[in-house]
Formats: sequence, C-alpha cells, structure tokens
Amino acid sequence: MQDTLKRIHENKIFEWTVVSVIILSALLIGAKTYHLPRPFVIFLTYADIGITLFFLVEITIRFIASDDKRNFFKSGWNVFDTLIVVVSLIPIEDSEMALVGRLVRVFRVLRMVSIVPELRVLINSLIKAMPQLSYVMLLLFIIFYIYGAVGSFFFNEINPVLWGDIATSMLTLFRVMTFEDWTDVMYETMGTYPLSWAFYLSFIFFTAFAFLNMVIGIVVNVLEKENAAHERERLLENSENKLTQLDQIQIELKEIRALLKARQ
Amino acid sequence: MQDTLKRIHENKIFEWTVVSVIILSALLIGAKTYHLPRPFVIFLTYADIGITLFFLVEITIRFIASDDKRNFFKSGWNVFDTLIVVVSLIPIEDSEMALVGRLVRVFRVLRMVSIVPELRVLINSLIKAMPQLSYVMLLLFIIFYIYGAVGSFFFNEINPVLWGDIATSMLTLFRVMTFEDWTDVMYETMGTYPLSWAFYLSFIFFTAFAFLNMVIGIVVNVLEKENAAHERERLLENSENKLTQLDQIQIELKEIRALLKARQ
Amino acid sequence: MQDTLKRIHENKIFEWTVVSVIILSALLIGAKTYHLPRPFVIFLTYADIGITLFFLVEITIRFIASDDKRNFFKSGWNVFDTLIVVVSLIPIEDSEMALVGRLVRVFRVLRMVSIVPELRVLINSLIKAMPQLSYVMLLLFIIFYIYGAVGSFFFNEINPVLWGDIATSMLTLFRVMTFEDWTDVMYETMGTYPLSWAFYLSFIFFTAFAFLNMVIGIVVNVLEKENAAHERERLLENSENKLTQLDQIQIELKEIRALLKARQ
Amino acid sequence: MQDTLKRIHENKIFEWTVVSVIILSALLIGAKTYHLPRPFVIFLTYADIGITLFFLVEITIRFIASDDKRNFFKSGWNVFDTLIVVVSLIPIEDSEMALVGRLVRVFRVLRMVSIVPELRVLINSLIKAMPQLSYVMLLLFIIFYIYGAVGSFFFNEINPVLWGDIATSMLTLFRVMTFEDWTDVMYETMGTYPLSWAFYLSFIFFTAFAFLNMVIGIVVNVLEKENAAHERERLLENSENKLTQLDQIQIELKEIRALLKARQ
Repeated sequence: MQDTLKRIHENKIFEWTVVSVIILSALLIGAKTYHLPRPFVIFLTYADIGITLFFLVEITIRFIASDDKRNFFKSGWNVFDTLIVVVSLIPIEDSEMALVGRLVRVFRVLRMVSIVPELRVLINSLIKAMPQLSYVMLLLFIIFYIYGAVGSFFFNEINPVLWGDIATSMLTLFRVMTFEDWTDVMYETMGTYPLSWAFYLSFIFFTAFAFLNMVIGIVVNVLEKENAAHERERLLENSENKLTQLDQIQIELKEIRALLKARQ
Repeated sequence: MQDTLKRIHENKIFEWTVVSVIILSALLIGAKTYHLPRPFVIFLTYADIGITLFFLVEITIRFIASDDKRNFFKSGWNVFDTLIVVVSLIPIEDSEMALVGRLVRVFRVLRMVSIVPELRVLINSLIKAMPQLSYVMLLLFIIFYIYGAVGSFFFNEINPVLWGDIATSMLTLFRVMTFEDWTDVMYETMGTYPLSWAFYLSFIFFTAFAFLNMVIGIVVNVLEKENAAHERERLLENSENKLTQLDQIQIELKEIRALLKARQ
Repeated sequence: MQDTLKRIHENKIFEWTVVSVIILSALLIGAKTYHLPRPFVIFLTYADIGITLFFLVEITIRFIASDDKRNFFKSGWNVFDTLIVVVSLIPIEDSEMALVGRLVRVFRVLRMVSIVPELRVLINSLIKAMPQLSYVMLLLFIIFYIYGAVGSFFFNEINPVLWGDIATSMLTLFRVMTFEDWTDVMYETMGTYPLSWAFYLSFIFFTAFAFLNMVIGIVVNVLEKENAAHERERLLENSENKLTQLDQIQIELKEIRALLKARQ
Repeated sequence: MQDTLKRIHENKIFEWTVVSVIILSALLIGAKTYHLPRPFVIFLTYADIGITLFFLVEITIRFIASDDKRNFFKSGWNVFDTLIVVVSLIPIEDSEMALVGRLVRVFRVLRMVSIVPELRVLINSLIKAMPQLSYVMLLLFIIFYIYGAVGSFFFNEINPVLWGDIATSMLTLFRVMTFEDWTDVMYETMGTYPLSWAFYLSFIFFTAFAFLNMVIGIVVNVLEKENAAHERERLLENSENKLTQLDQIQIELKEIRALLKARQ
C-alpha cells in the first residue's frame, strides 16, 4: 500500500491537482472579502469543507508514502502543512475562533510555497541570510534605541503622540527612515529646538549607512559563493586539461631516462 | 523590383527619413494635447493622413524587400508595425473609435523602438529577464495576497475605501510598499488594533527582502554572463599561448627520443 | 617672465591661496543670503571686487604660464574659468544684470571643481557615462512621452492642473515615479476611470525597470574596466613567472639535443 | 594581582555579565520614558547607581589587567568607556546637568558596540569608508551649496520659511532629495517662476548621480578587496600545485643531462 501511495504522491497529475486546490482555496479566501449573494456563501462553506478534507487526505498520503516516518515531522514544512490542516478541522463557532479559522485559511496560500520547490529555495535563502545579517540588524536596533531614547527625552512634551515613550519614538523613527512626512515631524520639533535637524539628519545618515552595509554584505556574499563555485569548476577543468599534458611530458622523460640507463 | 526596394530599404537616407517621420508623428501627438488655433488643427489632420500613408508605403517596401516572406509576420516587431498602420487606416467617426484611433497614434511612437536596434536590445533584455524573475514575482504576489486577505478581514470596517475587498487591499499595500503616506494608513488602523504596526512592518520587511532578492538576482545573472564570456576569452587566449609552448616541448622530447632510438 | 609665472603657478602656496579665495567667495555668497548690518554689506562689496581682481590675475598668470597658448581655450575648464571672470567684471547696475551678476558669483563655487583634480575626475566620469546611458534615457523619455500623451488624453478634463498638456503630464509622471503623493493623483482619476490604477502601476513598473537597467549598466561597466585592468596585470605577472620556467625547460632540452647530436 | 584581574577579565562569565549589565542599563533607560509608579522610580535610581558602580569596577579591572598601561587611553573605545563612567559619577542636581546625565546614560548603550567585536568591525568599516568617500561628499556639498544659494536668491520672497537663507535652503533641498512633499515646494515656486521645475529636476539628477557614484564606489571597493584576497589565495595554491610538477620535470631533465655528460 505504501508503494501505491508513493506512486500516487510522485505522480505529476496528483502534484498539479494539489497546486490547483491551493489556488482554488486562495480564490475562495479572496472571494470572501467581497459582498456575495447568499447561495454563493453557502457554496463557499461547502467548498471550504471539501478543501479541508482534500488537504487531510493529501497529508495522510504524504505521511504514509514517506519512508522515514520518524523524521517526517522534523521538516518544518511538514509540521506547517499538518498544523494548517489540523486547525482547519476545528469547528468554527464563536467569533474568537472564527477569526483564527479565517487566518488559518489565509495561511493555506503559503502551502503554495511548501509545494513549489523554487519558492522554497527563495524562502530558505531568506532564512539562511538571517544569521549573517544579525549583527547589522543589532547595530540598526542600537541606533534606533539610542535615537528613540534621546527623542523621547527631548520631544516628549512637544508631541506625546509621536514621542510619548521609547516604543512610540522608535516607530516614529522608522517613519523618518522611510522619509514618510519626516519634515512635518522635524519642523514641529525645530520650533522648540532649532538645532534638532541635526538629530534627524545624523539618524538618516547612520541608518542609510547600516542599510547600505547590509545590502553590500548580501551582494558580496552571493558573488563570493558564485565565484567560489566558478573557480572550483575552472580549476577542475584546467587541471584535467593541462596536467595531462605535463603528465605526458613526465612519462616521456621517464622513458628517455630508461633508454639512457638501459644503454649504460 | 525586389532588389530595387531592398536597396531603398537598406539606404541610410531612407532609414533616417523613417526615424524623422516617427519623431514628427510624436510631435503631432504632443501638439494635440495643447489648445491650438483652428488652421493648425486642420494642418494636423492632413499631416496625420500623410504620416499614415508614409508608414503604409514603408511597411509595404519592407514586406516586398524581405527575402523570407513566410516568416515576415513571425517577428513580433513586424506584426506590431503592421497592426499600427492597419488600425490607423480605419476612418475615425464616432467617439468610441476616436479614442482607439488616438491611442494607436500614440503607440506609433513605439515604432521608434522597432526601428532603433539599441532600443530593441533594451526591450528584449526586459522580455528575457521576465521568466527568470517569475518566481520572485510569484512570491511577491503571494505575500501581497496573504497580507491583502488579512488586511481586508481585520481593517474592512475601519476604512472600506482602503480595505474594502482583497483587490483594494492589495492596491493599498502597494501604496504602503512605496512608503506613500503609509503612516496615515497605519495610524488609522492602530486606533482599533494597537498592534497593527507589526502587520505593516513585517509586510515592508518581506517585500523589501523579495525586491532585494530580485535586484541581486538580476545583477548576479548579468555579472555571471559577463564573467563567463570573459573566462571563455581568457581560456582561449591562454591555451593558444601556453599550450603551444608545451607542444614545442613535447615535439622536442619526441625528437630526442627518436635520436636515442636511432642510435640503439 | 613665462618661467617665473610658471613657477608661481605650480607653487603649492599659490594653489592653496586660490582654493582659499574660492572658499572665501563661497562664504560671501552664503553670507549675502542673510540680513546683514550695513557696514558688513559694504565690506562684502569690496571683498567681491577683491575676489574678482584676484581671479583675473590668477587666470592671466595661468594663460601666460601655459606653453601651448593655442589650445588653452580648447579645455572646457579654462573657458569656464575665463567666462566666470569676464562676466564678473561687467558692472552691476540695473536689476536684470544684477541677477546675472549674482548667478555668476554663485557659479564661482564651481571653480572648486576646476581646481581640485579629484572633483574633476568625478565630473568627467559623469560626462563619460552620458553617451553610454543615452539609449536608456531615450527609452525612458519614450515611456514618459507615451504615458504623458495617454494621460493627457484621458485625464485632461479630470484635473487640467496635473494633466493639462503633454509637458504638464510628464512632470506629473515624474512625480509619480518619485512616489510623491502619487496615490492622490491616482485616486482622483480612479473616480472617473476605475481601472486607471493599471496606468500608474504599469508606468511605475516600466520606469523602475529602465532605471534598474541603467544602474546595472553602470555597475557592470565599472566592474568590467576593473576586471580588465586586473586581468591584464595578472597575465603580465603570470607570463613573466611561468613562461620563464617553461623557457628554462626548453633551453635545457635544446642543450640535451645538442649533446646528443654532438655525439652522433 | 594583575594576573588575577586578567583572568577575571578574560573569563567568559565576566564578559557575559558585562553584556547583561549593559542590556539592563538599556532597559532602564527605556523604562524611564514611560510613566511609572513611585516605588519603581526609586528602584530605578538605585539600579542606576548600581550600574554606575559596576561599570567603574569593570573599567578599573580592565585598566589594571592591561599590560600596556601607557597606551590604554590611546584606544578610542577605552577613552569612550572611561568618559561614560566618569560623567555618570557626577551627582545630578540642577536640571541642566540632569539632561547631560540622562544623555550619558543613553550613550551607555553604545558600550555594547565597544564590547561586541563584530559590532566594532561594522563601526570601523564606517570610519574607514569615510576618507574614501570624502570627495564625493565634497561634490555633494558643492551641489547643495550652489543650489541653496540660487534657491535663496530667487525663492526668498516666495516662501522665507523654506528659502530664507542658505542654511534653510540647503535643508529644503535635502528634503527635495528625499522626495518628501517636494512637489508642494516646486508648485509654490512655479507660481512665480514657471520654469523652476528645471531647478528641481536638475538638482535631483545631479544628487542622484553623486549618490550612485558613492554607492558604486563602495561596492567596487569591497569587491576589489574581495577579488584581491581571492586572487592571492588562488595564485598561492596554483603555484604550489603546478610549479612542483614543472620542478620535477626540471629535476628529471638535469638528471638526464648528467647521464649524458657522464657518458661523454
């Protein structure tokens, strides 16, 4: 039976069916955001149950078909898929749970990522880039924290909505970093502290530098891997090609020596 | 006759005439957007007929001059040119058609791209870059779709103009991505959901990452091709240069062995 | 006398004096934008005359010191310097000329660029990058022109201030490209044409692509030159190093053959 | 005693304690920006004294543990740490000093950078990049200065808040460069000078070019260092590998010659 399910699971038609059902579930979620006539709403409810059951069957097939059942839940994607299906099975009644149910249905669209390998590669590259960027992010956080504290101390009484406490200040600084109406924020504080433009300009300079550092870090890292792979290939090809000629020369020389020795 | 037309078609003066007429047609379109005195409007109408006829003659010459008439319409640029000319010939009467006629006259400016090879290269590079970027775009679409659905579920009642349905939500999210008055959108929803800043910040983070991925993907791809071409050239040059010296050594060794063998 | 002036011109102290006077002239221009007490204004007038005379003397020394007087005015920087000095000499009386005189005094700051070689290199790199980028700029202009014409045809009656004629439309589109309150522009036209978001999004997509192309073009060009210089150096070093060893082997082989031949 | 303190200083637990205390001091600063109940405020005061004393002890240990006490204050980081501790010791009484005391406590968070080596590397890279970028920054400053002076001359009477003097004008231009409501600034001056759009567009063009130059400069510089390190490694590896084979050939040839010579 495992073999049969394996064959089903590896079948191209099965794969495309899963992708189609995920797209269908995405369309249903989109449709729900519109005002719909009553019969269509009822149809959506049944379609939703159908999709939940299909996903349940699919994950079961995948589990039975897998050779290494112990490590099945060690893969983050499998855990994610199972969780989405299990939570979908919980009957939605009170409004609190309805919200969770709705969110779970939205996250079903993410199953697209767990099915299409090319998308999985993109997400993995994000996760891989994370630790490498962590120090730049820590530096960025320290910059935000210091400027947030200073901003909160000085500008708190000017506009408590923007500079009330350190968390609010950091959100305001993120806004300044995106250049979103940042001059309005600046002109307001310049009324009390005329030199506060230096606060904003230095903040923009430091964050821009940290971001530039981050982007360059990623580019250099990508190119480095690229170059390393390229170089390895080149060396292999090169050595096969040239060393053999040098090898032939060495063999030739050994034969010449052998000839000379033989005649002694 | 085909040869005569071919000579005309390949003539530098003919080429420059075509470019000049395209620029003239562009200027006429620009002129139409201003309020003009009556005689000038009449002149524009005649100039427009003249340009249409010129384009008709030019495409006919190009068609007759081409050796491979079967594949003439296999080139997208030829189909585009012919379509522009044919639709221009339809007489403009009712206001519906007038609009189409006007648009076709605007798209005549694009003939500039079909005539100047350097511009054609740029457009082709766009078309070539498309499939390679399709997965990043799909990921970006999934991010937009999920955030659009979540935004529509939660913020629908706060501001239906911005979050009414999933399509409107996605347009609002595009606006957030461009940082256009995004804090106004955020502060409004933070009135009801104080933690909704996390929604916007995570969205900005994910889209920025996907975009960065896209840009780096293009840069790496361009540099890779560059390097590959460079490397191929280098290898060729290198092998010509060095292998010949090694070849001379091998020839020399063979001669020495021949000398030794001859003396045995 | 030419030699004396040459020695003066090449003197480090003279060079630094020129730079100092340029900085002083820049400070005077800055000072003029503030409300100043009367005695200081009179001082500024005399200082201005002093700077003009100094520049006159400096350019005269430079002209007499130059060996190749025929080609002196073939250098754009010399023409620029002379022009600035000559126009400064025209007495300022009526208000029309006063404006020109003021502008000329502002452009004196640019003499900084003509004096400091490192800045001249930066400006030259801009001028050199120009032709190479001309096709991307032409493509960008065509995109702006087509969207400007279409925008003017459709949105003219909605808001003539933004879409009145093709020039105004192109300015509005530049604004959209910089994401400056672009949603306000879009929402206005979406009131009449609900699908006009496609107009803006496609425009943003095309211009973003063209810009990306431009940036990548510059980066690749810079890296290419970099790599070419690097490679040339590497090849030189490599050939010197390795070929000599191969040369030694060939010399050795020739000697061995000579030994063998001598014994025959 | 120096050895004991050295062992303490190099102890992993001691290092982590220092990091923890810095994080705690950061949290205290953040907490102070919120409205807190009275007992918590008193607790904060004592915690602050505790942190100051801890830092005093830590810096004393570091000083005594250091072998080269003469050069201890030659390191910028040590001077920074000592300064932070010393200023913290000054009792806060009048409101003037309270502000300085508060700021010093905020800058304690920067001690994180002086402790974590990875962050120190990032900051050093900023300091190292400075001189290399100085000419681009000078060019950028000249562009700002010229446009600021011109803007102040022409637009002074239109809006003195934005164009009152050269310093204000340069701040307004920085705002234009970040695209923050720049069209509002432009439309206002276009009311008096209809061609002033050229002023803004040319400014945006020049600053964008200078910035692009700066970014490309950094990227090329980073990649160059990368390539140089890579190349050096490659050459080393290459020469070890190939030269030994060529060396073997030379040794072989010498033996052959010796054989031939011996038989003469």
